[in-house]
Amino acid sequence: MRSEEKLLVRALNGETLSRPPFWMMRQAGRYLPEYRATRQDAGSFLDLCYNPELATKVTLQPIERFGMDAAILFADILLIPDGMGQTLDYREGEGPILEPVRSVADLSALSLDGLHTRVAPVYETVARLAAELPKEVTLIGFAGAPWTVATYMVEGRGSRDHAIVKQWAYGDPDGFGQLIDLLVTATVEYLDKQVEAGAEVVQLFDTWAGALSETAFQRWCIDPVRRIAGALRQKHPGLPIIGFPRGVGAGYRTFARQAGVNGVSLDWTVPLDWARDELQGEVTVQGNLDPRLLVVGGPAMESEARRILETLGQGPFIFNLGHGIVPETPPENVGRLAEILRG
Amino acid sequence: MRSEEKLLVRALNGETLSRPPFWMMRQAGRYLPEYRATRQDAGSFLDLCYNPELATKVTLQPIERFGMDAAILFADILLIPDGMGQTLDYREGEGPILEPVRSVADLSALSLDGLHTRVAPVYETVARLAAELPKEVTLIGFAGAPWTVATYMVEGRGSRDHAIVKQWAYGDPDGFGQLIDLLVTATVEYLDKQVEAGAEVVQLFDTWAGALSETAFQRWCIDPVRRIAGALRQKHPGLPIIGFPRGVGAGYRTFARQAGVNGVSLDWTVPLDWARDELQGEVTVQGNLDPRLLVVGGPAMESEARRILETLGQGPFIFNLGHGIVPETPPENVGRLAEILRG
Repeated sequence: MRSEEKLLVRALNGETLSRPPFWMMRQAGRYLPEYRATRQDAGSFLDLCYNPELATKVTLQPIERFGMDAAILFADILLIPDGMGQTLDYREGEGPILEPVRSVADLSALSLDGLHTRVAPVYETVARLAAELPKEVTLIGFAGAPWTVATYMVEGRGSRDHAIVKQWAYGDPDGFGQLIDLLVTATVEYLDKQVEAGAEVVQLFDTWAGALSETAFQRWCIDPVRRIAGALRQKHPGLPIIGFPRGVGAGYRTFARQAGVNGVSLDWTVPLDWARDELQGEVTVQGNLDPRLLVVGGPAMESEARRILETLGQGPFIFNLGHGIVPETPPENVGRLAEILRG
Repeated sequence: MRSEEKLLVRALNGETLSRPPFWMMRQAGRYLPEYRATRQDAGSFLDLCYNPELATKVTLQPIERFGMDAAILFADILLIPDGMGQTLDYREGEGPILEPVRSVADLSALSLDGLHTRVAPVYETVARLAAELPKEVTLIGFAGAPWTVATYMVEGRGSRDHAIVKQWAYGDPDGFGQLIDLLVTATVEYLDKQVEAGAEVVQLFDTWAGALSETAFQRWCIDPVRRIAGALRQKHPGLPIIGFPRGVGAGYRTFARQAGVNGVSLDWTVPLDWARDELQGEVTVQGNLDPRLLVVGGPAMESEARRILETLGQGPFIFNLGHGIVPETPPENVGRLAEILRG
């Protein structure tokens, strides 16, 4: 089946579908026993990301079990810094730990030269997926958006208040802009190769966009995403691109109008009627069930899922969660939701 | 000076002022050396909250130094659970630790009977402040909004994902509703006494409102705040009330229309033109400089402060931050901002 005929791509091209496509962020993940088993075979989390056989396997697991309309490459948003030579380690229960980059001088330790060699296994995973996926399923490639990747690179770990990276971004925007420029270039190259290997859609995750105030959100989130989208479309005309600026509230409107993406993924705070009235005329919307409702299941989950379908399904729409599936989610709840969504 | 003549109350009553009033959330706090000295004299953080002499002193410190138009009672949002008999402890560097309440059965350990006795020193602090504040300065009382207080009561500490409290709220709304009802009653009583003691305005802090998806935000944030506002106005007609549903994005519009408050405090993600066009016709807006810009200071802070003043100062407006002042803020930056705001 050609990409343009698949449900996800049709939705991203602006079509209102009687049965909207669905997938779920972090659908390949720890809530699945088969994922946990494969993860154990792989060694570390990074080993799994860089193992094409096993990364392909975990990407396919939720598709086999639940029949989503799209598979998202199993990888991590920090493979770009890793590929640029920043020391990266995942510690159990602590998340990522990086040797922080906090000044223009520190940037000299980073280079794009080794990027493609280091992340080559990811491109191979994409190629395998393109060959192995059921023909009607869309393959989504992805990267972290520059701001979010920068938060980890500068803080050196996950952060609650992003104090260090905001200090740099607010206090020395020209210096910080060099890091963002580097990430824009790296992200374009990385996603270009994913598309060449077979990704049919790409999503940019800007998980920490909501840490920024309006002016900074414009400069460090919207502008870089627009530059990436523009460069990718130069190489791949018509490529459908989804942006996910989590937590930006009414800033979603500006993003939808200016970021140059086809689809915008909504976090769970976005009111449905507002999304329909203010965003759906500009872009395809994707979202936005609270993943905690997927843990709870039952009528609470079902009524919210139906409300989302009814409100946003009147326009171009992809059903998804408002953030990733959490590990304690009972797989049977995901199964029940998939049943509802397949109609 | 009568309350209605003071700048803050005039703004909350819908007046557009040529020089908008200002104050800053957590203006009495660790960034001030005089606060740190008093805090050391007091003993624990709770000892300071319950010491009318010292709580009055720290409330006045920023007014003396910077001349804000309003002073906010120095207290804590967890005094209500403390006053209802829930064990509460503040550990240095860890924040609050509570013996969690996680079921309807657990609620039997809580009671309103001892509330006023336990928090009596807070009412005394309000009375002292009413007597001691410069005559043109407005005295703000406050409480945590029920949802946010409930997050701490149920989680037993600050939480990143609010998994436990959301599990209860989503999975057993009737049971969880009993905790919210109890908090609504306690909050009305607590704020009523603050107003009787001399508070001229009250603010409800719903710091974790953004953890909830739309339907739950309506039920656990907007509805309780509306009930509290209604009950307080029964007792104190015309009382100006400010709500701060942090992180709710476009949900701010619903809150402004439905929560029955005079003022809405905006977090730093709220776009200014959107706030002006969508909120300021309904309520007085308050906000929303990113506190990290106050750490950075200089032109970055000044240009953002002026942009906020220019955009929101065209309607009923109170200048504030988008969240509380952080401890590493240089006091001289607060001084410079106050200078700009006094015009």
